[in-house]
Amino acid sequence: VVCRGLYRALCIREKNMQQSLQRFPKTTSQYLRAIEGEPWKPSDAGPVFTPPVKDGQDPLDSGNLPEDLGYHVQMKDGIVYVYADKAAAERNEPKDLPYPSLENFIDDMNFLLVLIAQGPVKTYAHRRLKFLSSKFQVHEMLNEMEEMKELKNNPHRDFYNCRKVDTHIHAAACMNQKHLLRFIKKSYRVDADRVVYNAKGKQLTLKQLFQQLKLHPYDLTVDSLDVHAGRQTFQRFDKFNDKYNPVGASELRDLYLKTENAIHGEYFATIIKEVGSDLEDAKYQHTEPRLSIYGRSPEEWARLASWFNTHRVYSPNMKWMIQVPRIYDVFRSKNFLPHFGKMLECIFVPVFEATVNPQAHKELSVFLRHITGFDSVDDESKHSGHMFSTKSPKPEEWTSQKNPSYTYYIYYMYANILVLNNLRRQRGMNTFLFRPHCGEAGALTHLLAAFMTADNISHGLNLKKSPVLQYLYFLARIPIAMSPLSNNSLFLEYAKNPLLDFHEKGLMVSLSTDDPMQFHYTKEPLMEEYAIAAQVFKLSTCDMCEIARNSVLQCGLSHEEKVKFLGEKYQEDGPEGNDIRKTNVAQIRVAYRYETWCYELNLIAEGLKNE
Amino acid sequence: VVCRGLYRALCIREKNMQQSLQRFPKTTSQYLRAIEGEPWKPSDAGPVFTPPVKDGQDPLDSGNLPEDLGYHVQMKDGIVYVYADKAAAERNEPKDLPYPSLENFIDDMNFLLVLIAQGPVKTYAHRRLKFLSSKFQVHEMLNEMEEMKELKNNPHRDFYNCRKVDTHIHAAACMNQKHLLRFIKKSYRVDADRVVYNAKGKQLTLKQLFQQLKLHPYDLTVDSLDVHAGRQTFQRFDKFNDKYNPVGASELRDLYLKTENAIHGEYFATIIKEVGSDLEDAKYQHTEPRLSIYGRSPEEWARLASWFNTHRVYSPNMKWMIQVPRIYDVFRSKNFLPHFGKMLECIFVPVFEATVNPQAHKELSVFLRHITGFDSVDDESKHSGHMFSTKSPKPEEWTSQKNPSYTYYIYYMYANILVLNNLRRQRGMNTFLFRPHCGEAGALTHLLAAFMTADNISHGLNLKKSPVLQYLYFLARIPIAMSPLSNNSLFLEYAKNPLLDFHEKGLMVSLSTDDPMQFHYTKEPLMEEYAIAAQVFKLSTCDMCEIARNSVLQCGLSHEEKVKFLGEKYQEDGPEGNDIRKTNVAQIRVAYRYETWCYELNLIAEGLKNE
Repeated sequence: VVCRGLYRALCIREKNMQQSLQRFPKTTSQYLRAIEGEPWKPSDAGPVFTPPVKDGQDPLDSGNLPEDLGYHVQMKDGIVYVYADKAAAERNEPKDLPYPSLENFIDDMNFLLVLIAQGPVKTYAHRRLKFLSSKFQVHEMLNEMEEMKELKNNPHRDFYNCRKVDTHIHAAACMNQKHLLRFIKKSYRVDADRVVYNAKGKQLTLKQLFQQLKLHPYDLTVDSLDVHAGRQTFQRFDKFNDKYNPVGASELRDLYLKTENAIHGEYFATIIKEVGSDLEDAKYQHTEPRLSIYGRSPEEWARLASWFNTHRVYSPNMKWMIQVPRIYDVFRSKNFLPHFGKMLECIFVPVFEATVNPQAHKELSVFLRHITGFDSVDDESKHSGHMFSTKSPKPEEWTSQKNPSYTYYIYYMYANILVLNNLRRQRGMNTFLFRPHCGEAGALTHLLAAFMTADNISHGLNLKKSPVLQYLYFLARIPIAMSPLSNNSLFLEYAKNPLLDFHEKGLMVSLSTDDPMQFHYTKEPLMEEYAIAAQVFKLSTCDMCEIARNSVLQCGLSHEEKVKFLGEKYQEDGPEGNDIRKTNVAQIRVAYRYETWCYELNLIAEGLKNE
Repeated sequence: VVCRGLYRALCIREKNMQQSLQRFPKTTSQYLRAIEGEPWKPSDAGPVFTPPVKDGQDPLDSGNLPEDLGYHVQMKDGIVYVYADKAAAERNEPKDLPYPSLENFIDDMNFLLVLIAQGPVKTYAHRRLKFLSSKFQVHEMLNEMEEMKELKNNPHRDFYNCRKVDTHIHAAACMNQKHLLRFIKKSYRVDADRVVYNAKGKQLTLKQLFQQLKLHPYDLTVDSLDVHAGRQTFQRFDKFNDKYNPVGASELRDLYLKTENAIHGEYFATIIKEVGSDLEDAKYQHTEPRLSIYGRSPEEWARLASWFNTHRVYSPNMKWMIQVPRIYDVFRSKNFLPHFGKMLECIFVPVFEATVNPQAHKELSVFLRHITGFDSVDDESKHSGHMFSTKSPKPEEWTSQKNPSYTYYIYYMYANILVLNNLRRQRGMNTFLFRPHCGEAGALTHLLAAFMTADNISHGLNLKKSPVLQYLYFLARIPIAMSPLSNNSLFLEYAKNPLLDFHEKGLMVSLSTDDPMQFHYTKEPLMEEYAIAAQVFKLSTCDMCEIARNSVLQCGLSHEEKVKFLGEKYQEDGPEGNDIRKTNVAQIRVAYRYETWCYELNLIAEGLKNE
């Protein structure tokens, strides 16, 4: 019964990942087919990433955009449907694309909800995880010196020059506090008399703005800037959000950390480009900053794309993501939105339209080429009270002031990304991964929803509360971008962070900074993150390089770049896929991981054989 | 009785510090005089530091050296005596300088040995320390926001631009592993055909040397370099020492990390100058690297001074120290030395001679201007078995193969520094602080010996094992340079480090890196040290700036520089001595420290009143 449950859970994820053109590991698929007695066929479903720009090519080139398909897009029950034209929409005859079924999803979800609470399944998962921990410790004792020997004999490659990706970082906090401070001072030296602020029709120069705030930038310090998380923010996500306001002044946040303001987000763009240029100098670090789409107005996309193109906010070491804050309730209470469906419409319809007719949305189409995924963000510890079911109001009927639940948000984002990805693949365009914040706090259902819908997640702390989900994340090798320094300031003391435990068990963890502005002290926040983890958890070089390799596998870098950074066969599971000359991960380690993983998958297969 | 004991202990330290021209806090002196009913007079005994070079002045200028005094110096019973001439030496009529008395020292030591083991004294100290902890926590709860407000309103100064000194670092490991690796590769690109090695008369070029080692520098990585401390070094100081050999090859250590080799230490000098130049760029960081004098031959000083002068190893952000490894037993077993007295002679006589006749030892005299203190180094966990007493053999009689005890070493270093300092002050020259490694491991007697003799110490971990010594270090405000990352690799897990506990109680702790090559990952090791402490211990900005201020107070920077970095009155205890505009330490904090300290001193005074 236990094995049957785990088997079905994996099948649910496999189906959802394939439908939405996200990733599911080949090895797990092979075991699932073997259980079914079916032959395994390589799937052609998978994400499409924009290849890197070639020499001499303009990354923001808007020539060569595909022609208009003339399709009509329209939202129905919270999901965007694509029609040949308006008439087809009226006849309710959508184009032939996979559309998600709410009923199936709820069925699957209810099945999984029961599964993760079942006693025998819990016991089984708990025992297997404990076994995985002990097994790794034995592996270390036996093979640590061997792993090290492999790495010592590996020429030219070490932790410093193997690639690492900051898999979870918010653009508005991607610089450190000292960088922001320096930038503010510099801008004042250069731009004091420039009109930079427009409040209620009144125009203010930078000088006047600071006078109004009773501040002189020369005197500004990181203390008065006050963007760093301190002891005050622990368990206080609300206080933490205020830290985005330099000197507690939302005017400065608007001016320096926003894309829309009187200077069209120029300062923000410049800061980000400085961060990008530092990364290019450091060469081996990449980052995946998130920009916000709020879903308050359908123009947001066009404005964001215009900001991106105008200021040419491009760096080869950056891959962009879109984060959607779950703040329908805020917009609704201010009457900005009539219902939740409208929010979804603002988020997704513009992207569909640009996909159908790129020529008419040139800037957005170019911008979308550089977007690799969607994130869903907000304080997970807020409880919504709503239980997602087939009886839940449809998004267009969700007119109440209350915020929908995490799962509700996640489902509708996933559902739209699913349709969108299939449409974009048909057009030869890049697709998007769904990579929500998940399991930083709040209910276990969050992790369950992500298991069903997300290519990978950020945080995942709460996996330590559910052995079944943790084991499923292990079996499906779902990448988890962890940020122990962020957690240390907000939710969990450093030494208690499950990063080491997850890593030892073989979950696919990477390290990320989340918000360097708030959490880090040095000029290289990602290195700081790795250094502290290495020191506190006593990670070996092999551990660190394995985590770095995970980060490249998890991220939205293109196939071509991954080949360059990880080796030709990076898509193969097991030692075959590891090129030690590029990754500096010992083959002994990769072999151990692969054998251990196959052993666990095989246990399920064996368990089902006797049925 | 308890108070009498503590009072006498403090008097012992006061006397020894004043005699040796080291520091003892004014406030403690004032309380001691009050107890005695004596008026307090400011003491003129104290260290003399070389003032910073003025613009246009050459820091290595050897003009203007004082003339020859014609004195004769000669060691007797392990201590260098100064005579008007050889005849005076034969008459045993030394010049009028304070010479230490071994009998008094042993008396004092025996008194302290009894004191720290007395039940009532232990109880008293333990209770007071516990009280200090709780008191600080209450202070924090009440005043944390106020302290922060003070700092926010403090213009232009924050943690990044307040001065911090790396108070404990070894020159041979002052670069990080990546820096050393880069340097080795660079040297090969430039110098492949240069003769750099001289082994048994055979000369090798850099190329030949690497061929002999079967290595190509291009393939070299930080893994194969293998200088970083890993899990293997925990509790294994012996293995740690091997980490000084790049690629495990002592040839490379000789070539890149030594002052004496076929290229006269040029590479080592260049690396150090690169570290210095990085510090100058960063502006707010200083460092106090230790160079070794082994005491194996009297020529060591001249050779080291020649290296320093030839390569102009000078940086305004570096203050130099001399470390003496406690490895008499190694030299004796190889018959390099006839007895321990010879080792002391090699260490101290050349310095006396250069002090008496600087013109005849120009390079050394210039070098000594930049030396601010002596350190005593080695693995403290090795037990010697010898118990220092009046019956111990005199250094000249110490011919056995066994190593003298820590205390024996410490006493004779202290005794010679005492005479030397007084002689140098008479000549208007700079004096030296005694700053041994102490309490990293081993017996409590180490910390007791340092209490009697050292201006300040490195490590001090074992203070957590003796409440009486810990309380005495608190009362006498003895600075402790702590290196939790080093400890984490060698002796004590990070989270168990007493740094936070000591800091809360009000012991004067600073942060230092010890060996960036072995322990650190980033380009700014000292910032890494602060960042990790801040994250793991959740230090506030005020805490960090207080620790940074402690580091400046502790170090060997000149009076002029301390005035510049800490404010005019930095020598005053209490809030009067704190210039928040320079230190960014809240006055509330300094006032709290001062009141708390005076309260404890007053308790002793009150306790003695009733006698």
